[in-house]
This record gives sequence, structure tokens and C-alpha cells, in this order.
Amino acid sequence: MEYVVPVPLHNQIVEAAYRKRGYAADEAKQGARFCEMAAWHGIKTHNALKALHLDELFGSLNKDNPGCVPGATIIKKPSKFDACQKWNANKKLGQAVAFEAMETCCKLADKYGVGIVSVDQAFHYLWGGGYVMDAAKKGYIAYTNCTAALAEVVPFGGKFPTLGTNPHSWGFPTTEAIGFPIVIDWATSTVAMGRVQQFKREGKTLPPGAAVDANGNETTDPNQVSALVTFGAHKGYGLALINELVGALIGGSLPTIRSRPQEAAKIGRDEKTTPNFFFQVIHPDALNVGHFARGRSQAENLKAVVDDVMGHGNRDTGRCILPGEIEHQAAQRSEQAGGLIFTEAELDEFKEIADEGGVAFDAGALQRVG
Amino acid sequence: MEYVVPVPLHNQIVEAAYRKRGYAADEAKQGARFCEMAAWHGIKTHNALKALHLDELFGSLNKDNPGCVPGATIIKKPSKFDACQKWNANKKLGQAVAFEAMETCCKLADKYGVGIVSVDQAFHYLWGGGYVMDAAKKGYIAYTNCTAALAEVVPFGGKFPTLGTNPHSWGFPTTEAIGFPIVIDWATSTVAMGRVQQFKREGKTLPPGAAVDANGNETTDPNQVSALVTFGAHKGYGLALINELVGALIGGSLPTIRSRPQEAAKIGRDEKTTPNFFFQVIHPDALNVGHFARGRSQAENLKAVVDDVMGHGNRDTGRCILPGEIEHQAAQRSEQAGGLIFTEAELDEFKEIADEGGVAFDAGALQRVG
Repeated sequence: MEYVVPVPLHNQIVEAAYRKRGYAADEAKQGARFCEMAAWHGIKTHNALKALHLDELFGSLNKDNPGCVPGATIIKKPSKFDACQKWNANKKLGQAVAFEAMETCCKLADKYGVGIVSVDQAFHYLWGGGYVMDAAKKGYIAYTNCTAALAEVVPFGGKFPTLGTNPHSWGFPTTEAIGFPIVIDWATSTVAMGRVQQFKREGKTLPPGAAVDANGNETTDPNQVSALVTFGAHKGYGLALINELVGALIGGSLPTIRSRPQEAAKIGRDEKTTPNFFFQVIHPDALNVGHFARGRSQAENLKAVVDDVMGHGNRDTGRCILPGEIEHQAAQRSEQAGGLIFTEAELDEFKEIADEGGVAFDAGALQRVG
Repeated sequence: MEYVVPVPLHNQIVEAAYRKRGYAADEAKQGARFCEMAAWHGIKTHNALKALHLDELFGSLNKDNPGCVPGATIIKKPSKFDACQKWNANKKLGQAVAFEAMETCCKLADKYGVGIVSVDQAFHYLWGGGYVMDAAKKGYIAYTNCTAALAEVVPFGGKFPTLGTNPHSWGFPTTEAIGFPIVIDWATSTVAMGRVQQFKREGKTLPPGAAVDANGNETTDPNQVSALVTFGAHKGYGLALINELVGALIGGSLPTIRSRPQEAAKIGRDEKTTPNFFFQVIHPDALNVGHFARGRSQAENLKAVVDDVMGHGNRDTGRCILPGEIEHQAAQRSEQAGGLIFTEAELDEFKEIADEGGVAFDAGALQRVG
């Protein structure tokens, strides 16, 4: 049995909790907007429960080392380049920074064809796929990467974790062509560390190519795991390294001390422990050479290509889908239900968030979905 | 035993062969420049032998369907966006187009922080890593992707090949920091089709996760292979799909008829069979927020991050290297030898290229390396 939380009520609850923690009205609103977007698209791992829990552990409620500072102001540094902006986020709420950065990239792309916003002193933005999906729905080609909080992944052939699980997210404006945006969004490790811990608890064996022991030898025994490995051997390693290099060019410090202030203190003062964000948007007209076969429009051509990829019996296997399709189906389900779908276990936790912000929340009164 | 071909002689021979085939002086020069770059960096799969052989099979010497047209002029379409250009390459030699596009991107990046050139009606550019390496050596962050000639790869979960082996190439300006540019460059299939054919000849078994049979089931028997699969399951699939989507936005037609004019003719007139290129360059200053730990410069910070990634015993495993390191070592070997290193078998073929252009070439007179 699942339950439907109306969007206005959900957002009121999330906003109130953020406000209670000291966030400004606009930050709280962007925080709620993000949680709505995640829940709407079925992203259970990055909904309100995760967002506020993360803020509790590593963000504003971590009194020893607040990774996120309510009410922080982004400093937009002067740039000699019109199509690119450079921001010091000063540990402002990651979701608020990410929405603003992606919207800025769209405006830059409207003017220059492409726009980039690089962010230093950032805090976790949770689900990169959400921001690129949002921009793709508005008709743009969007991309983001960030340096993940902790270095948990070994470089290919190595034995010590010096890379984050460093995700990449791409969104394409395919809504007109196929009804939803194609969103390619994943971490560069084969599995997440949370998965290893889950397998350990359950006494299960890891899939091959997921982790190494302390000597850098592959292991499928979760008890022997010292670090994660990248997907696709040296290829995924290259992708994980990209985020570290981009982060280093923006202003990030050593990966092994990221989000680890105690480790940073050991190697000396003045090291930074914050992650970085990189955002980029391209206007589709900027790519359109205007010479499509059979006089197709750009959207018609996109549809013809996607239909060709999924055709020839591929779709009929029942196993072959487009990236972003699962999120689209979840959104359709939310649409039909008229709100955000939560399980009973999720509602129990969501009630705590409502209590934190002092918003009345009666789970028993919610509509149910089968 | 290997032999050293002096760069001027090598380039004279390659240029003469291109000229003989009708290419303009500048095209021949760019063609030779590319072959020099590939050979210098030890890229045996994309040196002069491959470049001219490819042109013979699919390019200017393919009289039924010349994929490449000597002397073709690039039409630079008007763009409303200053940072982005849109080119119709009219099947001009891929290497000449790619060098010009990357140099244009660098100029755009000098002005706007980022520059993009999208290319329709393209021909194979051979080794994408070369162009991004070249730009990275000049201090830029460079990226390119293209749609590979043939659709040989199934989408994840599918059974019919509708995607190219679609490569991605990234170059980073790390020369000041670590002595050479980091270059991340690979196809999105686990292996190339040539590898499958080689394994078939040699009666060997393929690695897991490389290919499927006609029903879309994984196979390691090269005799059962119907199509290739992407590396890293759905993650590599997303990366391969990116090139198709970008190609579709630029002006590419259906992947399954690309470079297959007979197939295109079957489904009707006016379909296109040409690949697409996408190039992008970012100026590193456009990312520099200017707040590095311990007062480091951007290059010093890049070095500190790379040293951290390779440190902690990773480099000492003897298996852990940086992407681009193998090419850098090959370049050092060329530098020491004072020219381009060829095997005896390669020289036999290179002699044919010399003969084609009518350039005297005495392999016996070449310096040898042990």
C-alpha cells in the first residue's frame, strides 16, 4: 500500500523544516522544489527524507563541521568570458545553488549558444539528473558533474581510494520528439558504498568488478572490501578522473581530504574540504546545421533517430529502454495519483520532518494507491 | 627491430599520396600532420597506413560511394550564437575538418570562455584523442565526440545493433602540472569488431560483456557474435546514445544506415549516410574561481590533486597510470629516436604509400632502434 502526499502539503512541510533549521525563505523553497522533483520522478534515494537527513549529518545540523550554511550568499566572481560564470557558493544549500546555476546556464545559452557555471565551495546537490532533466524539459541540452563527498573509489589498477563516486548527468530535449527528456545519470563507481554495506548485512556476494581489498585485488566478499572500483575498468576511471580534474581547475582541494576535516587538519592548515559543481547548457539551435534528411525538423529528426535505435526488435525484447524512461513512468504515476507517492515506512519518517517544522500532518487522511 | 622515419620525410610521403588522390595542398598537409601526430604518440591503429587505407576503402578511392571528397569546401552556416559554429563539411577530409574545428573552438574559447563547433556531412576523423591532446597541449580543456561509421552495437538489453562504437575524447591542460596532457579517449563498445574477427581467426574466447548473439543473449564465442555491446552495461549505453542524440541534433540521419548507402537506398530516397562531429573547448581561466588552498596557482592545484589521486601507494602498484601516459611515453621514445618509429611490416606498407606519391624511399637507409 502506498499513499499520495499532495504537492502543496509536501512542499509546505519541507519548507518549514528548512526554515526551522535557519534557511532563508528562498533556500527553503528551492529545497522543497528539489524534493518534490525527486519524489515526483520516483527517485526514492534522493527525496525529502534523504535531503534533510544529509543536511543533518553533514550540513547545517553538523555543529562540528557544517558542510552547508543557511543563508549563505553566492559570490559571483568577475569573469573575462561572457559565456561562463564562476561562483563561490560559500557552502550554500546545494539544491538552491544548482537550480540557480542551471537557470543561469540556460540564459547564457540563449545568448551565446552555450553557457557554463563553475562552482567552488559547494555542498552536495543530491541528484544531478534532476537539474539536467529540468533544463531538458525546457528545451536545452544540459550537463552537470560534481566531485562526490568522499573518496571511496580506487583509480584503475590502484589500491587506495582517491576518487569520489563522481557522477555525470546529461539531459536532452527530447520531449517534443518522444514525450519525455532522455536523462543519462549515474555515478562512476560500479556500485555505491551503501550497497556494499547492505550486502554485508545480508551476507551476500558482490557482483564482479565492484570492489577491491586493501591490496587492490578484486573481491566480491563485502567483508573484505576496502574501496570501490569504477565501472568499465579504465574507461569509467577516466570518467571519474574528469570530475577531479574539473574540480581541481575550479578550486577543489585534495580528493582524499574532501568532506574529511579531521584528515585535512592532519596534513596542515588551509586545505579545503568542499566539493565542486560544474554546469553546462547548450541551446539546441546552436547545433542545428539545418540540413536534415527528408526535410525533417530537428525534433522530427531526433524522433527518427531514437525510433531507429529502439526499433529493429530492440524495444520488443522488453529489456531495452531509454535512459530517463523509468523516471518518466514514475512521473506519469504521480500525475495519475495527483501527488507524490510515499510508502508507509517513508511516511513515518516524513511525519518527523513535519513535526520538526511544526506543520500538522495526518498520514491517515491521505489518499491511497494500490 | 624497429626503424626511425624522419618527420619531414614521413610528411613528404604522406602529403604526396594525398595529393596524388586529388586532395588540395592544405588538406594533404593536415592529413600528414595527423599521421605524424598518431605515429609520434605510438597510435599504431591510426597512423598513415590506416588513414590512407581508410580513404581507399570508404573515402576518395571508393568510386561507388566516396565518403570523402578531395577539395571539398566547408560551408560555415550563419549562427545566431557567437560562441558556437555550425559547419557542413561536405565530406571534406575528416582530419582537416577536425583540426580546423578544434582550432576554431580554441579561438572561440579565448573570447567567450567556451567554444563549440558542430559538423554535419563529415567523414571519419580517425583518432579523436589526437585533436583533444593537441588542444590540451596548447592549454585548453578539449572534448570531441562523433558518430562512428557503422552501427555495430546494441542498446543495453537490445538485440539489433543500432549504435556506433561512438567514441568520446577529453583532453586536459596538465602539461605544466605533470609534464603531459591527460587524455581520456575510448570507444563506448567493450571491444572493437576487429577484435572479434581476430579472436575468431585465432579460435579464442571473447571477454565477458563484449558481444551478443542474434537473440541479444551475451556470448563469448566469436562465431556466435551478431553485435557488440557497450562497456559498463547501461552506463556505457548512455554514453553511446549521447553521440547519436548529438548527431541527430546536428543533422545526422538514422544510425542503421550510416555509411551504408545500399541500406539507405532500400528505405527510400533522401536519407543521409554521413557521420557527425562535435567539438568543444573551454578556457581553463573560465573555470578558475581563484580560491585555491594554500595559495596554489591553478596549475599547482591541478598537480596537487593528480599527485593525491596517484599517491597513497597507487602509483607503486605498477598497474596504476594516468590516461594519456602511454601516449606520452611513446612521444618521449619518438623524441629520443629523433623521428617516427615503424616496424618492418609497417615499413613495407609505408613503401607502397611512398610509391603511390612517387617519393623515393629507401627503408634500408633508415636508422634503427633496438
